[in-house]
Amino acid sequence: MSEGMGKVTCNLTISADGYSAGLNQSEERPFGDDGGDGWGDKLHAWYVEGAEENKAEIDAMMSATKAFIMGRNMFGPVRGEWDRQWNGWWGENPPYHAPVFVLTHYARDPQPMDGGTTFHFVTDGIESALAQARAAAGDGEIAIQGGATTINQYLAAGLIDELRLHIAPLTLGAGTRLFEGVPPLKLEQVTARATSMVTHVTYRVLR
Amino acid sequence: MSEGMGKVTCNLTISADGYSAGLNQSEERPFGDDGGDGWGDKLHAWYVEGAEENKAEIDAMMSATKAFIMGRNMFGPVRGEWDRQWNGWWGENPPYHAPVFVLTHYARDPQPMDGGTTFHFVTDGIESALAQARAAAGDGEIAIQGGATTINQYLAAGLIDELRLHIAPLTLGAGTRLFEGVPPLKLEQVTARATSMVTHVTYRVLR
Repeated sequence: MSEGMGKVTCNLTISADGYSAGLNQSEERPFGDDGGDGWGDKLHAWYVEGAEENKAEIDAMMSATKAFIMGRNMFGPVRGEWDRQWNGWWGENPPYHAPVFVLTHYARDPQPMDGGTTFHFVTDGIESALAQARAAAGDGEIAIQGGATTINQYLAAGLIDELRLHIAPLTLGAGTRLFEGVPPLKLEQVTARATSMVTHVTYRVLR
Repeated sequence: MSEGMGKVTCNLTISADGYSAGLNQSEERPFGDDGGDGWGDKLHAWYVEGAEENKAEIDAMMSATKAFIMGRNMFGPVRGEWDRQWNGWWGENPPYHAPVFVLTHYARDPQPMDGGTTFHFVTDGIESALAQARAAAGDGEIAIQGGATTINQYLAAGLIDELRLHIAPLTLGAGTRLFEGVPPLKLEQVTARATSMVTHVTYRVLR
C-alpha cells in the first residue's frame, strides 16, 4: 500500500480447515458440498442468524469499501462466452453499491444495476483490475471479494494489505482452499473476536 | 465419549493455513521450514514470550490431562528399529508428568523419566493406545498430543471429543496439515479467545 492509497482488503468466510466452498459447485449449489444446502448456509450462518451479534464485522465488510474485485466463478456460473444474460447472484440491487470489477477472459460491456452497483468486466488480468478499482475507489478501500482462488492470486502477487477471516465451526475436507499455492506469509494479528457462531481474525500482511 | 470416561482432547498450534509443521523436518529442525528457526519458534511464540498472557490456555493444556498419546515422529527422529537411545526432545524431566503412549511399529520397553512421565511404546494401533491411555487416566482427560498426522488419524476414526487450536499469525504454505484426509466434521465452537499473538479456538466434535 502506498501513501494516499486505500488499502486492499479481503473478507472471506472459511471452514476451520480453510475452505471457502466445497467440491461440486454448480448453479444450483454454488458452494458445492458445503456441509449444508449448497448455498453456504452453514458457512455463513454468522451473518444471517448471527447478524446482530456480528454487526461490527458485517459493517466493516462493506462501509469503507469503494470498489470490489471478484472472480468470474463468484460472479456466476456462466463459462466461456457471455451467451446468456447473467447479472450475478444478488438480484437487481446487489449489496455492493459500488463498482465491481469481474475478472474474466471474455469481454462484456459494463452492467449497471440498481443501488449504485456496476459490474465491469476486466479481461487483462488481476493487476489491471486492481488499477481500475483504485481509480474508481480514490482513497477508499478496495475489497478482493472472492472467491478464494481469486484471493489466492492476489495474495501470491503480494497485492493484499489486510485479510479479514471469518472461521466457521465445521470442516469441509475438500474444495476451494484459502492460501492454496500461496507462498508463506508473515502476518500480524490486528484484531480477533469470537462470537457464538464464528471466530473473526484480521491479519495485516507484512512485506 | 461414554459416561464416566474422561474426554479425549487435543491441543495443536497451527499456522493460519492449518499447518503444524513445515516441510523438511529433521533432527536439527524438527518443525522443518516453519518460517523461523526450525524449532517452531514462530508458531509457538505465544507460549514462550506470551506465556503470561496465554496462561489460561497453557494451564488447560496440561492440568486435567492424565495420559498423553503421540506419534513416533513427535517423540523423536529415530526411524525403524530403536537402534539408538532416544528419550524424547524434552530432557530428563519432560513436561507431561503422566504416562505418554507413543505409537510405533517397533516394540520397546517402557521408559520411565523424572517427574512422573513414562513413555510407553504401543505397536498395535491407535485404538489400543487409546484403550491403554484410558486405563491409565481413569476418569481424567486424555490428550492426543500430536503431531497433526496422529491427530488426523484419531479425528478420522471419530475418537476425539475436543479440539483446542492455537492459530499463529503466519502461513507455511506446505507441510503437515491438520484435517488433511479427515472427512467433514461438524463442530461446535465452545470457546474462542484472542490474545496479542494467537487466536485460541476450542471446538467440540459433534457426532
